[in-house]
Amino acid sequence: MREVAIIGVGMNKWGELWDKSINDIFVETALEAIDDAGVDHIEAMYVGCMSGGLFNGQEHLASLLSDYLGMGPIPATRVESACASGGLAVKSAILEVMSGNSDIVLAGGVEKMTDVSGDQATYALATAADQEYEVYQGITFPGLYAMMARAHMHKYGTTREQLAAVAVKNHDNGSLNPLAQFPQKITIDAVVKSVMIADPLRILDCSPITDGAASVIVCSLETAKKISKKPIVKVIGFGHATDSIAYHSRDDLTSLNAVKLAGERAYKMAGKKPEDIDLVEVHDCFTIAEIVVTEALGFFEPGKGGPAVESGFTARDGRIPVNSSGGLKSKGHPVGATGVAQVVEVVKQLRGEAGNRQIKNARIGMTQNMGGSGGSSVVHIMEVV
Amino acid sequence: MREVAIIGVGMNKWGELWDKSINDIFVETALEAIDDAGVDHIEAMYVGCMSGGLFNGQEHLASLLSDYLGMGPIPATRVESACASGGLAVKSAILEVMSGNSDIVLAGGVEKMTDVSGDQATYALATAADQEYEVYQGITFPGLYAMMARAHMHKYGTTREQLAAVAVKNHDNGSLNPLAQFPQKITIDAVVKSVMIADPLRILDCSPITDGAASVIVCSLETAKKISKKPIVKVIGFGHATDSIAYHSRDDLTSLNAVKLAGERAYKMAGKKPEDIDLVEVHDCFTIAEIVVTEALGFFEPGKGGPAVESGFTARDGRIPVNSSGGLKSKGHPVGATGVAQVVEVVKQLRGEAGNRQIKNARIGMTQNMGGSGGSSVVHIMEVV
Repeated sequence: MREVAIIGVGMNKWGELWDKSINDIFVETALEAIDDAGVDHIEAMYVGCMSGGLFNGQEHLASLLSDYLGMGPIPATRVESACASGGLAVKSAILEVMSGNSDIVLAGGVEKMTDVSGDQATYALATAADQEYEVYQGITFPGLYAMMARAHMHKYGTTREQLAAVAVKNHDNGSLNPLAQFPQKITIDAVVKSVMIADPLRILDCSPITDGAASVIVCSLETAKKISKKPIVKVIGFGHATDSIAYHSRDDLTSLNAVKLAGERAYKMAGKKPEDIDLVEVHDCFTIAEIVVTEALGFFEPGKGGPAVESGFTARDGRIPVNSSGGLKSKGHPVGATGVAQVVEVVKQLRGEAGNRQIKNARIGMTQNMGGSGGSSVVHIMEVV
Repeated sequence: MREVAIIGVGMNKWGELWDKSINDIFVETALEAIDDAGVDHIEAMYVGCMSGGLFNGQEHLASLLSDYLGMGPIPATRVESACASGGLAVKSAILEVMSGNSDIVLAGGVEKMTDVSGDQATYALATAADQEYEVYQGITFPGLYAMMARAHMHKYGTTREQLAAVAVKNHDNGSLNPLAQFPQKITIDAVVKSVMIADPLRILDCSPITDGAASVIVCSLETAKKISKKPIVKVIGFGHATDSIAYHSRDDLTSLNAVKLAGERAYKMAGKKPEDIDLVEVHDCFTIAEIVVTEALGFFEPGKGGPAVESGFTARDGRIPVNSSGGLKSKGHPVGATGVAQVVEVVKQLRGEAGNRQIKNARIGMTQNMGGSGGSSVVHIMEVV
């Protein structure tokens, strides 16, 4: 199988971008990634977007965006797996290069979520759950993750303060990321006293509604070595797995099987173990998610994720830095873009371009992107060579 | 690059399937394809669906469907390119097998369009056009294709009766397809006197709103030779291209550049020319589309597509049989499923399993699937070996 590298990255300032269209937002990051890679063309394009239909009245998005990008007739594919759409776009681009069908491929992600009302956004996001057996009963994602938090607290003694510690750490990281939507530092006290959303989750446990995009350039390692002027980040493993998208259908409400499987597949392909990873970007759509995901990826035993964040193990100078970018919590969560932005952060860290939030001696990084309450997950492992 | 074959196909009776969910519809065809292939597992799955969000309040569809199919944790990806989503699912599965990442992959397509009102369906379909520059002005697809028809009539003298001849031929073919939504034979007179939709297009120039699904099993040629008990249909070429999704942005309103490019790429990969093709399934969402597409694929000179259908060149016993399945017009057009169903028809024809509508001596077949007014197109060429 052909070896693959990431040679260019682009991401814009995330937030409520009311003066820009979904096209504008995407194209900004695509051009930045193309420029960063130093390439003069791309041969194909993958775009992750969860619901251009419900958020923007726009399907057929990949053709639209390749046209606005000026890449005219290239093959362009939109992929969707709810909030894991971005990670899936990166994986799809990797497969395209591996297949030999293309050599230089753009993988982007975009979501413009703030042009609709809060109610409409909540409905659109709920379509990542099982319409017949979950949404119809009235459940939305804060409720689903609140149940996950309660189950984890009950089984393992995870505390309210441990959940809050995830948010505090990620906002601390995000305060050093000029592209983050909410770069404000926050405190444990602020989190536990913030507005209740779905008990025990409060507003500061939840990632925000965001407009934003991110892009990366994927190419064969052979081509990367010829053309790249920057440290080359090689993709050494990836994994993709699914689970019942209905949370109540799972065997265990306190673990995430798709994440576990995607992680195992990626570790196996890379020939690495959790202790080999120098930093990881995980899908902290809610604070409880980061705790359960770090357990599923094998960084901590089940039930130890809460104490780990509280002990600083996942801080920038900890044993395994988690979400140095600020994560979904502080950086923002334009759902289709998130998985691509995770790769952007890891590439910047592995190249030593992460500025004030640079992780020392980072050589191997991981990303973990997730759809719904864990109905799908995509994991990548990258190494600077 | 690894060689790839199609070893299993499945499709159900299309129509208004109010007693079935989108999950039911898809799973029926997936199980049929798995059974037809004689495999006991699949390693990955691609699902083409244009707008689960707007039609069914359901995104995250590939995970949902792999779960309902009982394929649990396999990697499952939804791809979308409006009405070309199905063809794109097949192409994506081919790339996955070519990459060596998987050996046996299911490519399916599904759309359940009749659970919403006609207005809602029209809105959902219009999201395949440019929201900002087309839909906002009030245009929908019958209007866009009516402009294409008018331009073609003006430039080449294509007649009202030639448009009707497409519908008459496809309903004649569809009358021999037990899975077709509208298997009724119709006449030129009936078409030209049917209800006006967007001048010059009348209701019998338009493909219907349909619930349906289709699935195929894609695998490496090597594995196909080991396990398949049926004639092996090899994928010898494919092409995928995009164009401005806004119809008014094109250089020429009477041709379809994405179709032309996708066709050229497929011919080049296959080492074939139009005259080598024994049958083709094309995207006749409106009668004018079949005429323009057969020209773009090189079967006829520009402007000769109308006279060709009128002369019977595209009939089952003609020089190049077009839409032996009945096409979108008679078989139905569940948008995400259409591109997959085209492959189902070609595989059945190449295996000699097409019953009363069997094309004699068919060895090489082509499919052409299209998004919007031609903003994307996917072409496949298959040969029985």
